[in-house]
Amino acid sequence: MASSAWSERILQLLRRMNNFYSASSRSSCFRFEIDGAQVGWIPPHVVSLLTPHADVFLPPQRGAVSLCPSLDCYEKRSEAVNDVLGALRQESSLTCLRGWRDERYSVKQRFCDVPLMWMERAATIFGVKRYGVHINGYTVNGSGEISMWLARRSVTKQTYPGRLDNMAAGGLAADVGIKHTLIKECEEEACIPADIAAKASPVSTVYTYEDEEGVFPESQFVFDLELPLDFVPCVGDGEVQDFYLLPIEEVKELLATDDFKPNSAMVILDFLIRHSLIEPDTPYYQEFVTGLHQTL
Amino acid sequence: MASSAWSERILQLLRRMNNFYSASSRSSCFRFEIDGAQVGWIPPHVVSLLTPHADVFLPPQRGAVSLCPSLDCYEKRSEAVNDVLGALRQESSLTCLRGWRDERYSVKQRFCDVPLMWMERAATIFGVKRYGVHINGYTVNGSGEISMWLARRSVTKQTYPGRLDNMAAGGLAADVGIKHTLIKECEEEACIPADIAAKASPVSTVYTYEDEEGVFPESQFVFDLELPLDFVPCVGDGEVQDFYLLPIEEVKELLATDDFKPNSAMVILDFLIRHSLIEPDTPYYQEFVTGLHQTL
Repeated sequence: MASSAWSERILQLLRRMNNFYSASSRSSCFRFEIDGAQVGWIPPHVVSLLTPHADVFLPPQRGAVSLCPSLDCYEKRSEAVNDVLGALRQESSLTCLRGWRDERYSVKQRFCDVPLMWMERAATIFGVKRYGVHINGYTVNGSGEISMWLARRSVTKQTYPGRLDNMAAGGLAADVGIKHTLIKECEEEACIPADIAAKASPVSTVYTYEDEEGVFPESQFVFDLELPLDFVPCVGDGEVQDFYLLPIEEVKELLATDDFKPNSAMVILDFLIRHSLIEPDTPYYQEFVTGLHQTL
Repeated sequence: MASSAWSERILQLLRRMNNFYSASSRSSCFRFEIDGAQVGWIPPHVVSLLTPHADVFLPPQRGAVSLCPSLDCYEKRSEAVNDVLGALRQESSLTCLRGWRDERYSVKQRFCDVPLMWMERAATIFGVKRYGVHINGYTVNGSGEISMWLARRSVTKQTYPGRLDNMAAGGLAADVGIKHTLIKECEEEACIPADIAAKASPVSTVYTYEDEEGVFPESQFVFDLELPLDFVPCVGDGEVQDFYLLPIEEVKELLATDDFKPNSAMVILDFLIRHSLIEPDTPYYQEFVTGLHQTL
């Protein structure tokens, strides 16, 4: 693909997730606030489902939905909201709750803040910012040529079944550290021994926050892991169906297709920039760098 | 300095330039538009100085200052605006024009766009986005320890005299390419031969847009250049008074002082993140990454 067509396509994919130029559903969302700190974005149809739960959620005020002040600590907030989510799961049309995982995510305004509560991972409709870890697994041969390990997601995954993905990735559950998650996901998803995974280097964060279906802010801590030439990852917990080692030029071409899980494609775009695999006078280079790190 | 105090200080420096949390002078600025495309930000006191030049600038409309439609090409716009700037330089209180350099900068909405006109570099009061090249010169010894070459700016420089800076850096003049500027600045400022400079790797862009004095959007194309251990840069054109090779931990500490030219400090912060010299659970790691690439 010619460079300018590639750039146009990549910009389109980036915009689809970080909807910073075109019309956005954000303007219709209510802020989700705890103690005056915004922790999420709730679309109007979800706000109306919360009205019967007046013991937990105050009526919307000035564009914000807040928790009742009596819910004044981490445990009370977490349990009260979880009860509401449990009820909504039974009765409502919120399809995301059908994917209930019993995984707890921390709710906080910024990553370095003390968490204000936890929330079920499947409750994406509250637009709470999530954090994860993505690992670029790659090799460099004797001539300096880079190849990248890609995973093909299992067809049974709830999200993006069968799509291409980074070698390993996973969400940060409540009270679990970044490095711990990195090592756990490498081991579970790709059978990478802890002593190899521990050599991964933290290099960036990639931020995505919106798609056609709503506002889902996610920030990925990105790690690069150069692997020995003779190392081969293997399918671990069944989240992945296959691994491929591809020359980086081929990965770059694939990035412009619809075959990738979208945020994983953006993690690879960040890799291409940091490893000088895209020239700075490539069309939209500036827009790529700023778009990858754009916040809400 | 303890990690959290260092982080607080760095966040403060970043916010001072990319004023994304606190009150900003941006809201009082007029958009500077050419053919409907915004190319800059003009503060109110400058807008009033343009009123007598009605043959060049239309009266402000809906928060925007536009060029007269009769200025319908690159040359006409450039010459007409340059004449106004020349007059303002004689008569007005705009101190920035005293630093007239006879250097032409391209005016365009995005880097990859065709330029709409050129403008004198000293005319910073129009808030036109500028582009430059910054080079991180560094060494890696046999034990893998990184040291970085820093420049001390000459005390006769118009901007930030005597401050610490990247090894080499410079603005992109109209019609001059990124790579060409990189090699030219390395040679002129630090006597780095072209064959060494050409090995610099493009790795990022760093965006800064505002300081206490106004809105000055600047985007730097960042290059990393690993230098041979026995290479020593030397003072070239007198823009630099001295060069130092410092262990990266010492550079990290210096970053939290006021000794650096502010945007150069941010280029080094980006280096520290990409080279895994800052752990991802460092306070404000996320805010650093997003802040370095934040756009207006």
